[in-house]
Amino acid sequence: MNAAAPVRRGDLPAALTALANRFGDSLSTAKAVRDQHGKDVSWHEALAPDAVVFARSPADVQDAVRICAGHGVPVIPYGVGTSLEGHISAPFGGVTIDLSGMDRILRVGAEDLDVTVEPGVTREALNEYLRDTGLFFPIDPGANASLGGMTATRASGTNAVRYGTMAQNVLALEVVLADGSLIHTGTRARKSSAGYDLTHLFVGSEGTLGIVTAVTLRLYGIPEEIAAAVCTFDTLEGAVRTTIETIQLGLPLARIELLDEVAVRGVNLHSGLGLPEKPTLCMEFHGSKAGVAEQTQTFADLAHANGGGDFAWATRVEERNALWRARHQALFAAKGLRPGCEAFITDVCVPISRMAEAILATQADIAASGLTAPILGHVGDGNFHVIFLLDPEDAGELARVKEVNGRMVDRALDMGGTSTGEHGVGLGKKDYVLREHGAGAVGVMAAVKAALDPGNIMNPGKVFDRP
Amino acid sequence: MNAAAPVRRGDLPAALTALANRFGDSLSTAKAVRDQHGKDVSWHEALAPDAVVFARSPADVQDAVRICAGHGVPVIPYGVGTSLEGHISAPFGGVTIDLSGMDRILRVGAEDLDVTVEPGVTREALNEYLRDTGLFFPIDPGANASLGGMTATRASGTNAVRYGTMAQNVLALEVVLADGSLIHTGTRARKSSAGYDLTHLFVGSEGTLGIVTAVTLRLYGIPEEIAAAVCTFDTLEGAVRTTIETIQLGLPLARIELLDEVAVRGVNLHSGLGLPEKPTLCMEFHGSKAGVAEQTQTFADLAHANGGGDFAWATRVEERNALWRARHQALFAAKGLRPGCEAFITDVCVPISRMAEAILATQADIAASGLTAPILGHVGDGNFHVIFLLDPEDAGELARVKEVNGRMVDRALDMGGTSTGEHGVGLGKKDYVLREHGAGAVGVMAAVKAALDPGNIMNPGKVFDRP
Repeated sequence: MNAAAPVRRGDLPAALTALANRFGDSLSTAKAVRDQHGKDVSWHEALAPDAVVFARSPADVQDAVRICAGHGVPVIPYGVGTSLEGHISAPFGGVTIDLSGMDRILRVGAEDLDVTVEPGVTREALNEYLRDTGLFFPIDPGANASLGGMTATRASGTNAVRYGTMAQNVLALEVVLADGSLIHTGTRARKSSAGYDLTHLFVGSEGTLGIVTAVTLRLYGIPEEIAAAVCTFDTLEGAVRTTIETIQLGLPLARIELLDEVAVRGVNLHSGLGLPEKPTLCMEFHGSKAGVAEQTQTFADLAHANGGGDFAWATRVEERNALWRARHQALFAAKGLRPGCEAFITDVCVPISRMAEAILATQADIAASGLTAPILGHVGDGNFHVIFLLDPEDAGELARVKEVNGRMVDRALDMGGTSTGEHGVGLGKKDYVLREHGAGAVGVMAAVKAALDPGNIMNPGKVFDRP
Repeated sequence: MNAAAPVRRGDLPAALTALANRFGDSLSTAKAVRDQHGKDVSWHEALAPDAVVFARSPADVQDAVRICAGHGVPVIPYGVGTSLEGHISAPFGGVTIDLSGMDRILRVGAEDLDVTVEPGVTREALNEYLRDTGLFFPIDPGANASLGGMTATRASGTNAVRYGTMAQNVLALEVVLADGSLIHTGTRARKSSAGYDLTHLFVGSEGTLGIVTAVTLRLYGIPEEIAAAVCTFDTLEGAVRTTIETIQLGLPLARIELLDEVAVRGVNLHSGLGLPEKPTLCMEFHGSKAGVAEQTQTFADLAHANGGGDFAWATRVEERNALWRARHQALFAAKGLRPGCEAFITDVCVPISRMAEAILATQADIAASGLTAPILGHVGDGNFHVIFLLDPEDAGELARVKEVNGRMVDRALDMGGTSTGEHGVGLGKKDYVLREHGAGAVGVMAAVKAALDPGNIMNPGKVFDRP
């Protein structure tokens, strides 16, 4: 979507009048507010919505959707704006529903290890709230994203290798549909075979099928022992081989993250960790004291056999936090490699047996294209990210980045992988979704979309183009 | 569905002529064949289809569906007939597609821990095939079900507490849709956020949205150490409390199964294990030698604190197999408690904090209703089964069973649980699905069904009634 302005749809003036009557000061049409709500942290062109409703309750969401539906005006859900593929841009104008004010934790089930939250609760706020319970919510995409947004994009992150993604951790949802009606999906039972799995249908649907107004999530006990470590490898193949052998052995690592040489250089510049500028794995081990000791010993044996060098251990909570903060700040750190640049972030996911090949081919393509682009990976899942560092004034450079990105996705698909492991489709990966799933499967997606949103008002223009 | 004969739909003679031309000897209209294909292992009235096609390839399935679709004739997929809620009965007549001949293992990805199979491969055949690879597929519903059928009913079983259900273990599918077209969902990547999650939509859809012609599954390394144990408790609450504390501690038990007093009596009669007739837990521990030793010690401490008595350990593979064979034969064992009876099997799943209450209330209701019905549970998930032992000649008894079953489901729903944890809906739980999800969510299911199967030919009459 490269149009400079939204292609508006529906009777916007009538919708805005009705919304103003219903929402008063909780409706804003101020330019600064609109601009902020159309812009995520991606490179995609930000197209501002025409208005923003600040919702405080499911009834607010229902009324806003009903009014917009009545006038054929698009509706775009907004959490905290940390998405990466233009999910909150408004190519057809319309009304953004800001859910950040729906930030209550509705219920904690300590015995059942579950919690129900409103969609605007962020993952850090949830874990802060849980601190005295001995429980935590592990899914960690790096950014302090909202749990509604993480649900909508099927987010995952560093802990997914052990704890799964949002797909495995959402038990139940409350969703407002395109007609303003409200439904519940799933239950608090840990499993069910009672009918179609609507929960998984809405998880990852990026606001195109409905707006999530409550999420029931699985929680986990904080492990007795947590240890983190950094290990440097002579070769990328050695780091990846170690990862594969770890997974094959069933070693229950909580995190295993790869940084390539360029990414390590960025982290060093930003965080002063002074790591050797070589392919590097950052790990975290969760378990009992004896279990963690056994895991770390097994891992060290595998790493040494694959050319892994010295380990730096971080067992104290402050050291661990410093390590993961440095990892999470890799995006900002990367920008230090090229001051004044913009970042174009992308991800793919491949079967782990093909991971070294996929990353090495991408590195070679980056080099051949004269680009600077660190690579970071949730390698236990076969998922890796490229942060292209762009001169925003150089149109030719953006074109080259898009070509390298396209070739990276093509290779991932040829290897049996996916065009995005955890960022979602948004505006950026629609063409690849069609190639990945084929016209038949995208036709099924479109049929489901048409059945649930016949007016195509729910975050239109995302995920796939309606046939 | 209590009609004595199917209410036929579509132009059956024309469809049968076309099928005979296409399939020759692979089409059967013999009564014995038809009767066998309409009857699962449940109490539901078996309504035979009008014909059976024995498919050998996706193209066979596509052609059979296209011919039936062209004449408005229902299509019912059949694996090995072990379903429990009348899933393969033919209330509207039509053609059963027997997939048991599609039994090839198409690909094993040893490095990626995945496998692609045709739908007729059974779980035991798969594990037999994998024996020399050091890998296994853990999902184990007891019966030697086909993997296509397990996909269709979102099956799980004794290992789900550690390895998840079919929902967590199906990576990708090949599916024939209601118009005979073939699509692929998912990829071999371990995670993805590339578009709607069609894989989870088809998993558990019981053949009502499409017919699975290939399944890509996750595999696991066979653990270094496996130990099994049996522990008897003075009270059911003690057994359940031990289970809850185990889950809260994050102890990675592979199996934790409850048998109530009546179920133990049945197992003793059948297998001669000589267990004390008290609430009993059967556990299995997977891990390294040290890890299993630590798990078993922790578990023993929890059990003793909750009134658990002596442990019987089974570390040798023969002993373990004898234990789990006894557990899996509990259904047949139960029939020994009342010779000549029929079994009416049902399941619910509740948040684990409510499990003791749910089971005790069910036991009291069984006793008050003058029925015999052992209870077995996958208690780590909050899932339990009741095997009602019925005199088939006594219509009043069936009515009482249905009432007890209904009250059990009602309690489960009131507790935030689900009407079926792993058996599926089929014919038997349609009314409860409506109560569980509400008219709005069932309306979404019906809209999806109508979008993908406008002629309502795919296993009609199952899961929910079309509005």
